[in-house]
Amino acid sequence: MAIIECVPNVSEGRRPEVLQSMLRGIGRVAGVRLLDHSSDASHNRSVLTMAGEAHGLKDAVMALFEVAIGSIDLRSHTGEHPRLGAVDVIPFIPIEGVTMADCVTLARETGAEIAKRFDVPVFLYEEAARVPGRTQLEDIRRGEFEGLAARMEAPEWAPDFGPPRPHPSAGATVVGARMPLIAFNINLATDRLDVAKKIAVAIRHSSGGFRFVKAMGVALQDRGIVQVSMNLTNFEKTPIFRVFEAVRREAARYGVSVLESEIVGLVPAAALVSTAEYFLRLDGFRSNQVLETRLKEMD
Amino acid sequence: MAIIECVPNVSEGRRPEVLQSMLRGIGRVAGVRLLDHSSDASHNRSVLTMAGEAHGLKDAVMALFEVAIGSIDLRSHTGEHPRLGAVDVIPFIPIEGVTMADCVTLARETGAEIAKRFDVPVFLYEEAARVPGRTQLEDIRRGEFEGLAARMEAPEWAPDFGPPRPHPSAGATVVGARMPLIAFNINLATDRLDVAKKIAVAIRHSSGGFRFVKAMGVALQDRGIVQVSMNLTNFEKTPIFRVFEAVRREAARYGVSVLESEIVGLVPAAALVSTAEYFLRLDGFRSNQVLETRLKEMD
Repeated sequence: MAIIECVPNVSEGRRPEVLQSMLRGIGRVAGVRLLDHSSDASHNRSVLTMAGEAHGLKDAVMALFEVAIGSIDLRSHTGEHPRLGAVDVIPFIPIEGVTMADCVTLARETGAEIAKRFDVPVFLYEEAARVPGRTQLEDIRRGEFEGLAARMEAPEWAPDFGPPRPHPSAGATVVGARMPLIAFNINLATDRLDVAKKIAVAIRHSSGGFRFVKAMGVALQDRGIVQVSMNLTNFEKTPIFRVFEAVRREAARYGVSVLESEIVGLVPAAALVSTAEYFLRLDGFRSNQVLETRLKEMD
Repeated sequence: MAIIECVPNVSEGRRPEVLQSMLRGIGRVAGVRLLDHSSDASHNRSVLTMAGEAHGLKDAVMALFEVAIGSIDLRSHTGEHPRLGAVDVIPFIPIEGVTMADCVTLARETGAEIAKRFDVPVFLYEEAARVPGRTQLEDIRRGEFEGLAARMEAPEWAPDFGPPRPHPSAGATVVGARMPLIAFNINLATDRLDVAKKIAVAIRHSSGGFRFVKAMGVALQDRGIVQVSMNLTNFEKTPIFRVFEAVRREAARYGVSVLESEIVGLVPAAALVSTAEYFLRLDGFRSNQVLETRLKEMD
């Protein structure tokens, strides 16, 4: 059975009744499981994690949209997190028995359907992008909802689907396909924020580091320590163990040691299995030696 | 759904037609999946790995016994591996949604049924043992089939089920419940067999090492290196990473480094996840953060 993950980010993090209504809409779709949801009031944003097959996920997105478009008005929406639309971003992620190409197809079909049913412009991003310069979410979202109408007057910002102007209350939606993202933080046994920041600069892609790492240095003030806070956007190509070892070595240069690390939210088993392989120096290990994987193959 | 693993060891490793006939017998039982099988001609022994629910596994063991008792005669059986019976050992192993106590119950029910249907004496071992001194397989198997009749004359060697004497051709069978066993080998960058042997002595339970480690030092002559060959019999209490680190430190004492390690056969995902947790110094990680685990919980 094919399993795809879908993680819609919605511009509503303060009214529980609106979130509940979205969750009920998704709950009515057969074959889709809600794995997780979290809301942030200061961001005024909620992140929903669901999984299922392509057909069910598309229906679930439509059910979510139905509620969002009737309840969220970007013209009066405030929050710390950048956003472009009522349903802001919808990534599809291959998990099991499914390829990235399948997720790209699903993203494009879902984007077309959103535009058709709700008259909302849709931009495709990451692996589903069709226009150069639209791979990165931050590039598409620059200027946010407030700057969107002016921006879409330029022909290069014609959407991939839907009208060439923002929806009055729901803005625009970014739909795409990407690898699972791992939120990975490493805490350092120091209160020196400059050390965390220098390490972040050393390891992140934007300043010369690993291709699939986004990183920043932050202070955990209540604990008197600092953290290298990271997103690993492709754990197959930039694996978690390599990033951990690089941070450890960079920290050692400043006489600082790694206190602990944490994974926030979900992580694919393969990312941890490859970490065990690395540190144990396992030779010739095959993923179907994992008992649970073998059992699943037999299903 | 509950999943139990069952790994019968059969005293036949040379006649493929007998093995095929056993596999066919198992294949006819609904709800049981054969995960693996391997035969060793010099041991004259085969190991079958299957998984399923209690009821199906009991039926599969009976189907296997039916073939074994008609085809294997211990009076003419030779091989390097110690053995007591045609079907020599049958361990049941808890994998998912099932407790060790469930596996003990299944082992005892299966043992009683074997004795009743095939008139073969059954000894219970490991977690299913009811008689002190019958926990360890090697204690029960001492003297092998050839010494069994004399041994069973002593009242303390009355079987847990069945007649107080060996079956003429099929000997006796040892049935029990245990944790999953991990076959874990560490190769050292040296040809000094004494180093591998000393490390084995240092880490194994029988000579003062870890509670759930069996180990020996062996030479890999074709490669000109040595190996610490281990069975980890309870990866929750004696975890794989702790054993690896202990071997690495002991080797360093002799100026020897670890070349690589290998896992032979199957390993539970939890053993690798806890290894990743250890080396990444993960703090507060919960097993349901593993995406595949979360998905399964939702089933």
